[in-house]
Amino acid sequence: MLNIAIAGLGTVGSSLVRLLQNNADAIAARAGQPVNIKAVSALTQKKRRDCDLKKIEWVDDPRALAKMPGIDVVVELIGGTEGTAREIAEATLGNGRHLVTANKALLAAHGAALAALAEKNKAQLSFEASVAGGIPIIKTMREALAGNGITSVRGILNGTCNYILTRMGQSGLSFEEALREAQEKGYAEADPAADIDGHDAAHKIAILAALAFGAAPDIKSVEVEGIRRITPVDLQFAEELSCRVRLLGVARMENGKLEQRVAPALVPQSLPLAQVSGALNAVLVRGNFAGDLMLQGQGAGGEPTASSVASDIIDIARGDFVPAFGIPASKLKKFSAAAAGHSARYYMRMQVSDRPGVVADISAILRDEAISIESLLQRGRSATDSVPVVIVTHEAQADAMKRAAEKIAKVKTVVEKPCLLPIEE
Amino acid sequence: MLNIAIAGLGTVGSSLVRLLQNNADAIAARAGQPVNIKAVSALTQKKRRDCDLKKIEWVDDPRALAKMPGIDVVVELIGGTEGTAREIAEATLGNGRHLVTANKALLAAHGAALAALAEKNKAQLSFEASVAGGIPIIKTMREALAGNGITSVRGILNGTCNYILTRMGQSGLSFEEALREAQEKGYAEADPAADIDGHDAAHKIAILAALAFGAAPDIKSVEVEGIRRITPVDLQFAEELSCRVRLLGVARMENGKLEQRVAPALVPQSLPLAQVSGALNAVLVRGNFAGDLMLQGQGAGGEPTASSVASDIIDIARGDFVPAFGIPASKLKKFSAAAAGHSARYYMRMQVSDRPGVVADISAILRDEAISIESLLQRGRSATDSVPVVIVTHEAQADAMKRAAEKIAKVKTVVEKPCLLPIEE
Repeated sequence: MLNIAIAGLGTVGSSLVRLLQNNADAIAARAGQPVNIKAVSALTQKKRRDCDLKKIEWVDDPRALAKMPGIDVVVELIGGTEGTAREIAEATLGNGRHLVTANKALLAAHGAALAALAEKNKAQLSFEASVAGGIPIIKTMREALAGNGITSVRGILNGTCNYILTRMGQSGLSFEEALREAQEKGYAEADPAADIDGHDAAHKIAILAALAFGAAPDIKSVEVEGIRRITPVDLQFAEELSCRVRLLGVARMENGKLEQRVAPALVPQSLPLAQVSGALNAVLVRGNFAGDLMLQGQGAGGEPTASSVASDIIDIARGDFVPAFGIPASKLKKFSAAAAGHSARYYMRMQVSDRPGVVADISAILRDEAISIESLLQRGRSATDSVPVVIVTHEAQADAMKRAAEKIAKVKTVVEKPCLLPIEE
Repeated sequence: MLNIAIAGLGTVGSSLVRLLQNNADAIAARAGQPVNIKAVSALTQKKRRDCDLKKIEWVDDPRALAKMPGIDVVVELIGGTEGTAREIAEATLGNGRHLVTANKALLAAHGAALAALAEKNKAQLSFEASVAGGIPIIKTMREALAGNGITSVRGILNGTCNYILTRMGQSGLSFEEALREAQEKGYAEADPAADIDGHDAAHKIAILAALAFGAAPDIKSVEVEGIRRITPVDLQFAEELSCRVRLLGVARMENGKLEQRVAPALVPQSLPLAQVSGALNAVLVRGNFAGDLMLQGQGAGGEPTASSVASDIIDIARGDFVPAFGIPASKLKKFSAAAAGHSARYYMRMQVSDRPGVVADISAILRDEAISIESLLQRGRSATDSVPVVIVTHEAQADAMKRAAEKIAKVKTVVEKPCLLPIEE
């Protein structure tokens, strides 16, 4: 029998209790032994929860689980970079016990140190649930693609943003309207900043970059930008260019430099990521032998996330141990950030006063940055209001594009800061 | 060092040699030890191959690899249900050595016996490459979804058929034209029967059914139908119904009966499987906690398939052993086939002489089988030629639909056997 303790009984924790109880027989057959929930802990015992805790020992202080006798695996579902979650993780692994966690912030900040601690104490550190909910992208990268050199990993890693962008595209809603709808439907939090400003996805791409390239997870190296400045006009132009707008997490190695970023991008409809709509998540990995592999599924929610936690527990019950990030912790490297160096085709939308000469001003600035124009689109005419003008560039350097956008923002006939989006081929 | 021997050096075998050589350092770091190709065997040593065999021992009789001293893993890439492949598999596992194979036919016929033999001799039987090329669907079902009860698994498992159906839909090519094009592009064999008649996909769905439901793989229980009778007219009607036509492998448990079939079906465009175009493969699994999870990628070709073989080898090098079909071989059950019992909405296209009364005749037959009509579409009118009429039914039993189609085929004004396709929701 494998004895586990669960710290944290929110939607994921209580779904996990339900999963392990409902599917107990199948899990025992697959795991080679029954999985027993020996103890649980959460902020308050009184709250009504959608699971049966009657036969499970309640522990008031979750930190006690790490050293409680007879526990093989501690499941940390509290969350947060520091505090209780980190204490539990360090104490559990330090005691030579296995840790299963859904905590992306903890791993993106302290992943390399925790992996080293796990190794030193011959314990397993597993975190399938930390990225993309029910999608087994950690196992896929750590195990299924282990024979490949990875070229890039790109993902729709935040269902809230994908829901908002999908609704803005389908129905022409403004960002604010789509956000309100997402909040009403439970896809967005009352305080949506972590999602819509890209920080949630940033943690996830830092973890995926570590798995793809043997990098020590480093949240500080991730360039982050959210979706607040996307307007319905951008979604219409994207459609005209046979693209969709998606918030993408991207990790890519170029000349020994690691690019890690989260930003809205134009995704050609021919790429399968463009077809992923609504609150779903998806990850597209490119391997040097497997080619393009995409996984798509439920990126959040108690039950899908519990499914991922359960797979980590079953792997441990089976005796299948894998280095946390796929290679020994001592081999995890620190890479210099390549964010400014990468190049792409770009979409740039400007709001301009409709006067002769504005296109001449803009194109002169682009020429001075050695950026060449692939196409220019203008919609509508107005003597009084500003009108949108879109330029699609040929391949250009990210830093040159940013300099150009800043200069363009200062042109008198340009009304606001241009909206600059890379095109992800 | 893990010593492996490779039997069979076709496109997959030579890609595997290249993969293990090109990615050797990364693989050693991930596997915890170097993977060494100690011996290879194939029909002839003389053939030019796209890999470097200079430092590898050549063995004339592949069956000798199973008992050659110092070999830890035998990789069987010969293929076929019986003969050399089966002999190698049995001898390898019988000697307590690990077997990695890409042989779907062998597993679909003898999977349960081989799994039992592996267990008895404490050897691993692995076959990621047997289904869907570079897509890690075996690992996903066996490990990542191990906490779930599986409701259904449905896949586009044959790239040749998907290419043909995609081209017929995009460009209105006839089946024969699209097949010829697929042959010219290398997506279809000179003798395409195994692909287009569904037998290739049938082996794969038998293996997926085993993993999903703990069934002993049983190729004989799979109901098989290919795509020869699909016409461009069907693809046009499908589009009008917001669907696409796909050859689907389906495994589904209903009331303790296991439905396993391969057949063309109408897939609503809202289902992600409908978006999978060209020679790609994709598998959609529904778990009771994970929800819908879809994997999409390269379903064939030397390099993607070698990527899957490599992941099996690396798992073994890491010491990660899992029962072949996810549960002990002794627990694999034989289920009775449920093919005739399942129900679905149906699409039925008939070619009819355009005379008054034909719809009355058809609807009387459907009424007698208690099948109710959801919609009826007719295109074109002709006093001399036959015209297509399409009926979409409400949910109906498969056997009732088949009886109705047979009766309708005998109506004088109906020119040929109706084309009957289930609608996969």
